[in-house]
Amino acid sequence: MRKILVIGIGAGDPDHLTLQAVKALNRAEVFFILDKGEQKADLARLRHDILERHVERPYRLVAARDPDRERAEPDYTPAVARWRSRRADLYERLIAEQVPDDGCGAFLVWGDPALYDSTLGILEEIRRHGRVEFDHEVVPGISSVSALAARHRIGLNRVGRPVQITTGRRLAEGLPDGVDDIVVMLDAHQAFARYADDPDLHLYWGAYLGTPDEILVAGKAADVADRILALRAEARARKGWIMDTYLLRRGDPAEDPPGD
Amino acid sequence: MRKILVIGIGAGDPDHLTLQAVKALNRAEVFFILDKGEQKADLARLRHDILERHVERPYRLVAARDPDRERAEPDYTPAVARWRSRRADLYERLIAEQVPDDGCGAFLVWGDPALYDSTLGILEEIRRHGRVEFDHEVVPGISSVSALAARHRIGLNRVGRPVQITTGRRLAEGLPDGVDDIVVMLDAHQAFARYADDPDLHLYWGAYLGTPDEILVAGKAADVADRILALRAEARARKGWIMDTYLLRRGDPAEDPPGD
Repeated sequence: MRKILVIGIGAGDPDHLTLQAVKALNRAEVFFILDKGEQKADLARLRHDILERHVERPYRLVAARDPDRERAEPDYTPAVARWRSRRADLYERLIAEQVPDDGCGAFLVWGDPALYDSTLGILEEIRRHGRVEFDHEVVPGISSVSALAARHRIGLNRVGRPVQITTGRRLAEGLPDGVDDIVVMLDAHQAFARYADDPDLHLYWGAYLGTPDEILVAGKAADVADRILALRAEARARKGWIMDTYLLRRGDPAEDPPGD
Repeated sequence: MRKILVIGIGAGDPDHLTLQAVKALNRAEVFFILDKGEQKADLARLRHDILERHVERPYRLVAARDPDRERAEPDYTPAVARWRSRRADLYERLIAEQVPDDGCGAFLVWGDPALYDSTLGILEEIRRHGRVEFDHEVVPGISSVSALAARHRIGLNRVGRPVQITTGRRLAEGLPDGVDDIVVMLDAHQAFARYADDPDLHLYWGAYLGTPDEILVAGKAADVADRILALRAEARARKGWIMDTYLLRRGDPAEDPPGD
Protein backbone atom coordinates (compact mmCIF):
# COMPACT_ATOMS: atom_id res chain seq x y z
CA MET A 1 0.00 0.00 0.00
CA ARG A 2 1.19 3.52 -0.79
CA LYS A 3 2.05 5.69 2.20
CA ILE A 4 1.41 9.41 2.08
CA LEU A 5 2.92 11.65 4.75
CA VAL A 6 1.54 15.12 5.46
CA ILE A 7 4.39 16.88 7.20
CA GLY A 8 4.05 20.18 9.03
CA ILE A 9 7.33 22.02 8.54
CA GLY A 10 6.72 24.99 10.81
CA ALA A 11 5.98 28.64 10.30
CA GLY A 12 9.14 29.81 8.53
CA ASP A 13 12.11 29.09 10.80
CA PRO A 14 13.80 25.91 9.49
CA ASP A 15 14.50 25.02 13.14
CA HIS A 16 10.74 24.78 13.76
CA LEU A 17 11.08 21.33 12.22
CA THR A 18 10.44 18.59 14.79
CA LEU A 19 12.57 15.47 15.18
CA GLN A 20 9.45 13.55 14.07
CA ALA A 21 9.32 15.62 10.88
CA VAL A 22 13.02 14.99 10.16
CA LYS A 23 12.42 11.25 10.51
CA ALA A 24 9.34 11.48 8.29
CA LEU A 25 11.28 13.40 5.61
CA ASN A 26 13.71 10.50 5.52
CA ARG A 27 10.96 7.97 4.85
CA ALA A 28 9.72 9.61 1.65
CA GLU A 29 11.14 9.09 -1.80
CA VAL A 30 9.14 11.83 -3.44
CA PHE A 31 8.09 15.24 -2.13
CA PHE A 32 5.15 17.19 -3.47
CA ILE A 33 5.45 20.93 -3.36
CA LEU A 34 2.31 22.77 -4.35
CA ASP A 35 2.38 26.49 -4.80
CA LYS A 36 -0.34 28.97 -5.46
CA GLY A 37 1.65 30.76 -8.13
CA GLU A 38 2.37 33.78 -6.01
CA GLN A 39 5.79 35.33 -5.82
CA LYS A 40 6.99 33.28 -2.89
CA ALA A 41 10.43 32.30 -4.14
CA ASP A 42 11.72 32.80 -0.59
CA LEU A 43 9.35 30.12 0.70
CA ALA A 44 10.20 27.71 -2.10
CA ARG A 45 13.90 28.16 -1.34
CA LEU A 46 13.29 27.56 2.35
CA ARG A 47 11.62 24.23 1.60
CA HIS A 48 14.46 23.20 -0.68
CA ASP A 49 16.95 24.12 2.02
CA ILE A 50 15.07 21.96 4.54
CA LEU A 51 15.20 18.95 2.21
CA GLU A 52 18.86 19.52 1.34
CA ARG A 53 19.83 19.79 4.96
CA HIS A 54 17.84 16.93 6.44
CA VAL A 55 17.13 14.24 3.85
CA GLU A 56 19.92 11.70 3.80
CA ARG A 57 18.62 9.49 0.99
CA PRO A 58 17.96 10.14 -2.70
CA TYR A 59 14.66 11.84 -3.33
CA ARG A 60 12.57 13.36 -6.08
CA LEU A 61 10.86 16.70 -5.91
CA VAL A 62 7.61 17.22 -7.79
CA ALA A 63 6.42 20.79 -7.97
CA ALA A 64 2.94 21.63 -9.19
CA ARG A 65 0.76 24.67 -9.26
CA ASP A 66 -2.33 24.64 -7.09
CA PRO A 67 -5.51 25.58 -8.97
CA ASP A 68 -6.38 29.22 -8.36
CA ARG A 69 -9.14 30.01 -5.93
CA GLU A 70 -11.34 33.04 -5.77
CA ARG A 71 -10.65 34.19 -2.20
CA ALA A 72 -13.77 36.37 -2.16
CA GLU A 73 -15.88 33.20 -1.99
CA PRO A 74 -17.24 32.90 1.53
CA ASP A 75 -16.95 29.68 3.50
CA TYR A 76 -17.75 26.36 1.91
CA THR A 77 -19.70 27.40 -1.16
CA PRO A 78 -20.11 25.38 -4.36
CA ALA A 79 -17.23 27.42 -5.82
CA VAL A 80 -14.93 26.35 -2.99
CA ALA A 81 -16.11 22.75 -3.40
CA ARG A 82 -15.30 22.85 -7.13
CA TRP A 83 -11.88 24.32 -6.42
CA ARG A 84 -11.25 21.60 -3.89
CA SER A 85 -12.31 18.95 -6.42
CA ARG A 86 -9.82 20.30 -8.95
CA ARG A 87 -7.15 20.09 -6.30
CA ALA A 88 -8.23 16.55 -5.41
CA ASP A 89 -7.91 15.53 -9.06
CA LEU A 90 -4.42 17.02 -9.21
CA TYR A 91 -3.28 15.41 -5.95
CA GLU A 92 -4.79 12.07 -6.95
CA ARG A 93 -2.88 12.15 -10.24
CA LEU A 94 0.35 13.09 -8.46
CA ILE A 95 -0.03 10.21 -6.00
CA ALA A 96 -1.00 7.68 -8.68
CA GLU A 97 1.75 8.67 -11.08
CA GLN A 98 4.61 9.54 -8.76
CA VAL A 99 4.34 7.18 -5.80
CA PRO A 100 5.00 3.49 -6.51
CA ASP A 101 2.46 0.98 -5.15
CA ASP A 102 4.58 0.28 -2.09
CA GLY A 103 6.29 3.65 -2.03
CA CYS A 104 6.13 6.71 0.20
CA GLY A 105 5.38 10.28 -0.83
CA ALA A 106 5.14 13.41 1.30
CA PHE A 107 3.32 16.71 1.15
CA LEU A 108 5.18 19.52 2.91
CA VAL A 109 2.79 21.91 4.64
CA TRP A 110 3.70 25.27 6.15
CA GLY A 111 2.82 25.60 9.81
CA ASP A 112 0.55 22.86 11.14
CA PRO A 113 -1.54 20.78 8.72
CA ALA A 114 -4.45 21.14 11.17
CA LEU A 115 -4.85 24.92 10.84
CA TYR A 116 -6.24 26.59 7.72
CA ASP A 117 -4.78 24.04 5.35
CA SER A 118 -6.73 21.89 2.89
CA THR A 119 -4.34 18.98 2.34
CA LEU A 120 -6.04 16.63 4.82
CA GLY A 121 -9.53 17.35 3.50
CA ILE A 122 -8.34 16.76 -0.05
CA LEU A 123 -6.76 13.42 0.85
CA GLU A 124 -10.07 12.36 2.42
CA GLU A 125 -11.85 13.31 -0.78
CA ILE A 126 -9.42 11.25 -2.89
CA ARG A 127 -9.97 8.34 -0.55
CA ARG A 128 -13.74 8.62 -1.03
CA HIS A 129 -13.28 8.57 -4.82
CA GLY A 130 -11.63 5.18 -4.34
CA ARG A 131 -9.52 5.30 -7.49
CA VAL A 132 -6.12 5.26 -5.81
CA GLU A 133 -5.33 3.44 -2.59
CA PHE A 134 -3.09 4.87 0.09
CA ASP A 135 -2.67 5.18 3.81
CA HIS A 136 -1.67 8.51 5.28
CA GLU A 137 -0.03 9.87 8.40
CA VAL A 138 0.16 13.41 9.74
CA VAL A 139 3.15 15.03 11.41
CA PRO A 140 2.10 18.11 13.42
CA GLY A 141 4.07 21.32 12.98
CA ILE A 142 4.65 24.63 14.72
CA SER A 143 1.85 26.87 13.46
CA SER A 144 2.23 30.58 12.82
CA VAL A 145 -0.09 30.99 15.84
CA SER A 146 2.45 29.29 18.12
CA ALA A 147 5.31 31.18 16.49
CA LEU A 148 3.51 34.50 16.96
CA ALA A 149 2.93 33.85 20.66
CA ALA A 150 6.51 32.68 21.22
CA ARG A 151 8.06 35.70 19.53
CA HIS A 152 5.86 38.05 21.57
CA ARG A 153 6.47 35.90 24.68
CA ILE A 154 2.74 35.80 25.41
CA GLY A 155 0.14 33.19 26.18
CA LEU A 156 -2.80 32.87 23.81
CA ASN A 157 -5.46 32.46 26.49
CA ARG A 158 -6.13 33.99 29.88
CA VAL A 159 -6.55 31.78 32.98
CA GLY A 160 -9.45 29.38 32.45
CA ARG A 161 -10.71 31.30 29.41
CA PRO A 162 -11.09 30.52 25.72
CA VAL A 163 -9.12 31.67 22.70
CA GLN A 164 -10.62 31.73 19.23
CA ILE A 165 -8.70 31.38 15.97
CA THR A 166 -10.53 32.96 13.08
CA THR A 167 -10.08 34.63 9.70
CA GLY A 168 -9.80 38.24 8.65
CA ARG A 169 -13.06 38.01 6.74
CA ARG A 170 -14.89 36.80 9.86
CA LEU A 171 -13.32 39.50 11.99
CA ALA A 172 -14.46 42.12 9.50
CA GLU A 173 -18.05 41.02 10.27
CA GLY A 174 -17.58 41.75 13.97
CA LEU A 175 -15.70 40.67 17.06
CA PRO A 176 -16.76 37.15 18.05
CA ASP A 177 -18.99 36.77 21.12
CA GLY A 178 -17.84 35.47 24.46
CA VAL A 179 -14.12 35.50 23.83
CA ASP A 180 -11.53 38.17 24.65
CA ASP A 181 -8.53 36.60 22.89
CA ILE A 182 -8.79 36.30 19.14
CA VAL A 183 -6.09 35.08 16.77
CA VAL A 184 -6.62 36.18 13.18
CA MET A 185 -5.25 34.40 10.12
CA LEU A 186 -5.75 34.85 6.36
CA ASP A 187 -6.40 38.55 6.73
CA ALA A 188 -5.69 40.22 3.40
CA HIS A 189 -7.65 43.35 4.34
CA GLN A 190 -6.30 44.31 7.79
CA ALA A 191 -9.61 43.84 9.53
CA PHE A 192 -8.02 44.88 12.84
CA ALA A 193 -8.00 48.48 11.63
CA ARG A 194 -11.74 48.82 12.15
CA TYR A 195 -11.32 48.11 15.88
CA ALA A 196 -8.34 50.42 16.31
CA ASP A 197 -10.36 53.00 18.24
CA ASP A 198 -11.41 50.47 20.91
CA PRO A 199 -9.31 51.59 23.91
CA ASP A 200 -9.64 48.17 25.50
CA LEU A 201 -7.90 46.16 22.74
CA HIS A 202 -4.27 45.12 22.54
CA LEU A 203 -2.74 43.94 19.29
CA TYR A 204 0.18 41.52 18.87
CA TRP A 205 1.15 41.36 15.22
CA GLY A 206 3.83 39.44 13.34
CA ALA A 207 4.81 39.03 9.69
CA TYR A 208 7.24 36.58 8.04
CA LEU A 209 7.45 34.87 11.44
CA GLY A 210 10.59 32.86 12.02
CA THR A 211 12.35 34.21 8.94
CA PRO A 212 15.11 36.84 8.67
CA ASP A 213 12.42 39.30 7.48
CA GLU A 214 10.30 38.89 10.61
CA ILE A 215 8.50 42.03 11.82
CA LEU A 216 6.87 42.23 15.26
CA VAL A 217 4.68 44.99 16.65
CA ALA A 218 2.70 44.95 19.91
CA GLY A 219 0.77 47.50 21.89
CA LYS A 220 -2.62 49.06 22.42
CA ALA A 221 -4.50 48.75 19.14
CA ALA A 222 -5.07 52.51 19.09
CA ASP A 223 -1.32 53.10 19.38
CA VAL A 224 -0.02 50.54 16.87
CA ALA A 225 -2.67 49.98 14.18
CA ASP A 226 -1.45 52.76 11.89
CA ARG A 227 2.16 51.68 12.23
CA ILE A 228 1.24 48.08 11.35
CA LEU A 229 -0.72 49.25 8.30
CA ALA A 230 2.30 51.23 7.08
CA LEU A 231 4.86 48.51 7.84
CA ARG A 232 2.69 45.88 6.19
CA ALA A 233 2.15 47.90 3.01
CA GLU A 234 5.85 48.71 2.74
CA ALA A 235 6.97 45.11 3.31
CA ARG A 236 4.40 43.72 0.89
CA ALA A 237 5.49 46.15 -1.82
CA ARG A 238 9.16 45.42 -1.24
CA LYS A 239 8.91 41.58 -1.12
CA GLY A 240 5.89 41.06 -3.37
CA TRP A 241 4.08 38.93 -0.78
CA ILE A 242 3.32 38.90 2.91
CA MET A 243 2.21 36.34 5.46
CA ASP A 244 1.09 37.80 8.75
CA THR A 245 -1.04 36.92 11.74
CA TYR A 246 -2.06 38.62 14.96
CA LEU A 247 -3.73 38.33 18.32
CA LEU A 248 -6.39 40.80 19.44
CA ARG A 249 -6.63 40.84 23.23
CA ARG A 250 -9.34 42.59 25.20
CA GLY A 251 -8.49 43.93 28.65
CA ASP A 252 -5.29 44.65 30.52
CA PRO A 253 -2.78 41.78 30.16
CA ALA A 254 -1.17 42.80 33.47
CA GLU A 255 -4.46 42.70 35.41
CA ASP A 256 -5.74 39.57 33.71
CA PRO A 257 -2.73 37.52 32.62
CA PRO A 258 -2.50 34.44 30.45
CA GLY A 259 -2.23 31.09 32.18
CA ASP A 260 -3.72 27.68 32.84
CA MET B 1 22.32 39.47 32.22
CA ARG B 2 20.70 36.16 33.11
CA LYS B 3 18.96 34.39 30.26
CA ILE B 4 15.84 32.34 30.94
CA LEU B 5 14.52 30.00 28.23
CA VAL B 6 10.94 28.76 28.25
CA ILE B 7 11.04 25.67 26.08
CA GLY B 8 7.98 23.90 24.74
CA ILE B 9 8.84 20.20 24.64
CA GLY B 10 5.73 18.89 22.89
CA ALA B 11 2.73 16.90 23.98
CA GLY B 12 4.32 13.63 25.05
CA ASP B 13 6.21 12.18 22.09
CA PRO B 14 9.92 12.94 22.60
CA ASP B 15 10.15 13.42 18.82
CA HIS B 16 7.78 16.40 19.09
CA LEU B 17 10.88 18.31 20.13
CA THR B 18 11.86 20.90 17.51
CA LEU B 19 15.41 21.49 16.30
CA GLN B 20 15.08 24.93 17.89
CA ALA B 21 14.24 23.30 21.22
CA VAL B 22 17.24 20.95 20.97
CA LYS B 23 19.51 23.95 20.39
CA ALA B 24 17.89 25.80 23.29
CA LEU B 25 18.37 22.81 25.61
CA ASN B 26 22.07 22.96 24.82
CA ARG B 27 22.31 26.62 25.84
CA ALA B 28 21.09 26.08 29.40
CA GLU B 29 23.22 25.04 32.34
CA VAL B 30 20.31 24.48 34.71
CA PHE B 31 16.84 23.07 34.04
CA PHE B 32 13.85 23.77 36.25
CA ILE B 33 11.27 21.06 36.46
CA LEU B 34 8.16 22.00 38.35
CA ASP B 35 5.57 19.42 39.18
CA LYS B 36 2.18 19.68 40.71
CA GLY B 37 2.79 16.74 43.02
CA GLU B 38 0.56 14.35 41.13
CA GLN B 39 1.59 10.82 40.29
CA LYS B 40 3.12 11.65 36.98
CA ALA B 41 6.32 9.65 37.23
CA ASP B 42 5.92 8.75 33.54
CA LEU B 43 6.07 12.41 32.58
CA ALA B 44 9.04 13.13 34.84
CA ARG B 45 10.91 10.22 33.28
CA LEU B 46 10.08 11.44 29.80
CA ARG B 47 11.61 14.81 30.54
CA HIS B 48 14.73 13.21 31.98
CA ASP B 49 15.01 11.05 28.85
CA ILE B 50 14.78 14.15 26.67
CA LEU B 51 17.62 15.83 28.56
CA GLU B 52 19.77 12.69 28.58
CA ARG B 53 19.33 12.18 24.88
CA HIS B 54 19.79 15.72 23.63
CA VAL B 55 21.92 17.78 26.02
CA GLU B 56 25.58 17.45 25.13
CA ARG B 57 27.03 19.57 27.93
CA PRO B 58 27.01 19.23 31.69
CA TYR B 59 23.80 20.45 33.27
CA ARG B 60 22.01 20.65 36.58
CA LEU B 61 18.43 19.69 37.19
CA VAL B 62 16.42 21.51 39.84
CA ALA B 63 13.09 19.96 40.67
CA ALA B 64 10.55 21.80 42.76
CA ARG B 65 6.95 21.36 43.68
CA ASP B 66 4.49 23.87 42.30
CA PRO B 67 2.23 25.37 44.98
CA ASP B 68 -1.13 23.63 45.00
CA ARG B 69 -4.04 25.37 43.37
CA GLU B 70 -7.70 24.97 44.09
CA ARG B 71 -8.96 24.04 40.61
CA ALA B 72 -12.54 24.84 41.56
CA GLU B 73 -11.63 28.54 41.50
CA PRO B 74 -13.13 30.10 38.41
CA ASP B 75 -11.05 32.25 36.09
CA TYR B 76 -8.79 34.94 37.43
CA THR B 77 -10.06 35.34 40.97
CA PRO B 78 -8.08 36.70 43.90
CA ALA B 79 -7.37 33.07 44.89
CA VAL B 80 -5.79 32.39 41.51
CA ALA B 81 -3.82 35.63 41.77
CA ARG B 82 -2.49 34.59 45.23
CA TRP B 83 -1.55 31.16 43.88
CA ARG B 84 0.25 32.76 41.00
CA SER B 85 2.11 35.07 43.40
CA ARG B 86 3.31 32.08 45.41
CA ARG B 87 4.56 30.53 42.19
CA ALA B 88 6.23 33.80 41.21
CA ASP B 89 8.05 33.88 44.56
CA LEU B 90 9.23 30.31 44.03
CA TYR B 91 10.35 30.88 40.44
CA GLU B 92 12.08 34.13 41.41
CA ARG B 93 14.04 32.34 44.14
CA LEU B 94 14.98 29.53 41.74
CA ILE B 95 16.26 32.00 39.17
CA ALA B 96 18.13 34.14 41.72
CA GLU B 97 19.74 31.21 43.50
CA GLN B 98 20.38 28.77 40.66
CA VAL B 99 21.22 30.88 37.60
CA PRO B 100 24.52 32.80 37.74
CA ASP B 101 24.42 36.51 36.77
CA ASP B 102 25.54 35.76 33.21
CA GLY B 103 24.14 32.20 33.12
CA CYS B 104 21.29 30.51 31.34
CA GLY B 105 18.42 28.55 32.89
CA ALA B 106 15.48 26.83 31.23
CA PHE B 107 11.93 25.93 32.15
CA LEU B 108 10.65 22.86 30.32
CA VAL B 109 6.96 23.18 29.47
CA TRP B 110 4.71 20.41 28.16
CA GLY B 111 3.02 21.24 24.88
CA ASP B 112 3.28 24.86 23.82
CA PRO B 113 4.05 27.53 26.45
CA ALA B 114 1.34 29.69 24.81
CA LEU B 115 -1.61 27.41 25.61
CA TYR B 116 -2.96 26.95 29.15
CA ASP B 117 0.40 27.37 30.82
CA SER B 118 1.31 29.97 33.43
CA THR B 119 5.09 30.12 33.08
CA LEU B 120 5.15 33.21 30.83
CA GLY B 121 2.69 35.13 33.00
CA ILE B 122 4.74 34.29 36.09
CA LEU B 123 7.98 35.48 34.49
CA GLU B 124 6.26 38.79 33.63
CA GLU B 125 5.17 39.10 37.26
CA ILE B 126 8.74 38.49 38.48
CA ARG B 127 9.98 41.11 36.05
CA ARG B 128 7.47 43.63 37.43
CA HIS B 129 8.71 42.93 40.98
CA GLY B 130 12.12 44.07 39.75
CA ARG B 131 14.14 42.11 42.32
CA VAL B 132 15.95 39.81 39.88
CA GLU B 133 17.03 40.81 36.41
CA PHE B 134 16.78 38.48 33.46
CA ASP B 135 15.92 38.38 29.79
CA HIS B 136 13.76 35.53 28.49
CA GLU B 137 13.07 33.76 25.22
CA VAL B 138 10.28 31.37 24.28
CA VAL B 139 10.61 28.26 22.13
CA PRO B 140 7.21 27.18 20.75
CA GLY B 141 6.22 23.53 21.05
CA ILE B 142 3.76 21.06 19.58
CA SER B 143 0.63 21.46 21.71
CA SER B 144 -1.69 18.62 22.63
CA VAL B 145 -4.19 20.35 20.32
CA SER B 146 -1.86 19.89 17.33
CA ALA B 147 -1.02 16.36 18.41
CA LEU B 148 -4.72 15.47 18.74
CA ALA B 149 -5.49 16.73 15.25
CA ALA B 150 -2.48 14.97 13.72
CA ARG B 151 -3.31 11.63 15.31
CA HIS B 152 -6.92 11.86 14.11
CA ARG B 153 -5.70 13.20 10.74
CA ILE B 154 -8.16 16.08 10.91
CA GLY B 155 -8.10 19.82 10.50
CA LEU B 156 -9.19 21.93 13.45
CA ASN B 157 -11.23 24.44 11.46
CA ARG B 158 -13.57 24.26 8.49
CA VAL B 159 -12.96 26.39 5.38
CA GLY B 160 -12.91 30.07 6.31
CA ARG B 161 -14.43 29.37 9.75
CA PRO B 162 -13.22 29.78 13.33
CA VAL B 163 -12.09 27.23 15.91
CA GLN B 164 -12.26 27.93 19.62
CA ILE B 165 -10.01 26.43 22.26
CA THR B 166 -11.64 26.39 25.66
CA THR B 167 -11.78 24.59 29.00
CA GLY B 168 -13.99 21.83 30.32
CA ARG B 169 -15.46 24.16 32.91
CA ARG B 170 -16.48 26.65 30.21
CA LEU B 171 -17.95 23.90 28.06
CA ALA B 172 -20.00 22.71 31.02
CA GLU B 173 -21.68 26.14 31.01
CA GLY B 174 -22.78 25.72 27.39
CA LEU B 175 -21.52 25.39 23.85
CA PRO B 176 -19.86 28.65 22.76
CA ASP B 177 -21.73 30.86 20.30
CA GLY B 178 -20.88 31.22 16.66
CA VAL B 179 -18.35 28.43 16.40
CA ASP B 180 -18.83 24.82 15.28
CA ASP B 181 -15.35 23.50 16.09
CA ILE B 182 -14.41 23.49 19.75
CA VAL B 183 -11.23 22.10 21.27
CA VAL B 184 -11.52 21.38 24.98
CA MET B 185 -8.62 21.25 27.43
CA LEU B 186 -8.37 20.92 31.21
CA ASP B 187 -11.58 18.93 31.40
CA ALA B 188 -11.56 16.92 34.61
CA HIS B 189 -15.32 16.35 34.51
CA GLN B 190 -15.98 15.08 30.96
CA ALA B 191 -18.16 18.01 30.02
CA PHE B 192 -18.70 16.48 26.57
CA ALA B 193 -21.04 13.92 28.12
CA ARG B 194 -23.79 16.50 28.52
CA TYR B 195 -23.88 17.04 24.75
CA ALA B 196 -23.79 13.36 23.85
CA ASP B 197 -27.42 13.31 22.76
CA ASP B 198 -26.88 16.03 20.15
CA PRO B 199 -27.06 14.06 16.88
CA ASP B 200 -25.15 16.78 15.04
CA LEU B 201 -21.92 16.57 17.09
CA HIS B 202 -18.77 14.60 16.32
CA LEU B 203 -16.16 13.93 18.97
CA TYR B 204 -12.43 13.40 18.42
CA TRP B 205 -10.82 12.40 21.70
CA GLY B 206 -7.27 11.56 22.68
CA ALA B 207 -5.48 10.70 25.93
CA TYR B 208 -1.74 10.39 26.68
CA LEU B 209 -1.16 11.76 23.19
CA GLY B 210 2.19 10.88 21.66
CA THR B 211 3.06 8.36 24.36
CA PRO B 212 2.95 4.55 24.24
CA ASP B 213 -0.28 4.73 26.29
CA GLU B 214 -2.07 6.88 23.71
CA ILE B 215 -5.81 6.24 23.31
CA LEU B 216 -7.82 7.65 20.40
CA VAL B 217 -11.57 7.55 19.87
CA ALA B 218 -13.57 9.35 17.18
CA GLY B 219 -17.16 9.24 15.99
CA LYS B 220 -20.57 10.73 16.47
CA ALA B 221 -20.80 11.98 20.04
CA ALA B 222 -23.89 9.85 20.61
CA ASP B 223 -21.98 6.73 19.52
CA VAL B 224 -18.69 7.23 21.37
CA ALA B 225 -19.33 9.28 24.52
CA ASP B 226 -20.04 6.28 26.76
CA ARG B 227 -17.02 4.40 25.45
CA ILE B 228 -14.78 7.41 26.13
CA LEU B 229 -16.16 7.73 29.66
CA ALA B 230 -15.38 4.06 30.33
CA LEU B 231 -11.94 4.09 28.72
CA ARG B 232 -11.03 7.28 30.53
CA ALA B 233 -12.08 5.99 33.94
CA GLU B 234 -10.25 2.71 33.40
CA ALA B 235 -7.02 4.36 32.21
CA ARG B 236 -7.08 6.92 35.00
CA ALA B 237 -7.51 4.22 37.61
CA ARG B 238 -4.76 2.07 36.12
CA LYS B 239 -2.16 4.83 35.64
CA GLY B 240 -3.14 7.17 38.48
CA TRP B 241 -3.37 10.19 36.18
CA ILE B 242 -4.72 11.16 32.81
CA MET B 243 -4.16 13.97 30.34
CA ASP B 244 -6.74 14.15 27.58
CA THR B 245 -8.16 16.63 25.12
CA TYR B 246 -10.82 16.56 22.45
CA LEU B 247 -12.47 18.34 19.55
CA LEU B 248 -16.25 18.76 19.37
CA ARG B 249 -17.32 19.29 15.76
CA ARG B 250 -20.80 20.30 14.69
CA GLY B 251 -22.06 19.15 11.29
CA ASP B 252 -20.97 16.53 8.80
CA PRO B 253 -17.19 16.59 8.26
CA ALA B 254 -17.67 15.07 4.78
CA GLU B 255 -20.16 17.73 3.67
CA ASP B 256 -18.32 20.59 5.31
CA PRO B 257 -14.64 19.67 5.40
CA PRO B 258 -11.73 21.37 7.13
CA GLY B 259 -9.51 23.60 5.02
CA ASP B 260 -8.13 27.04 4.39
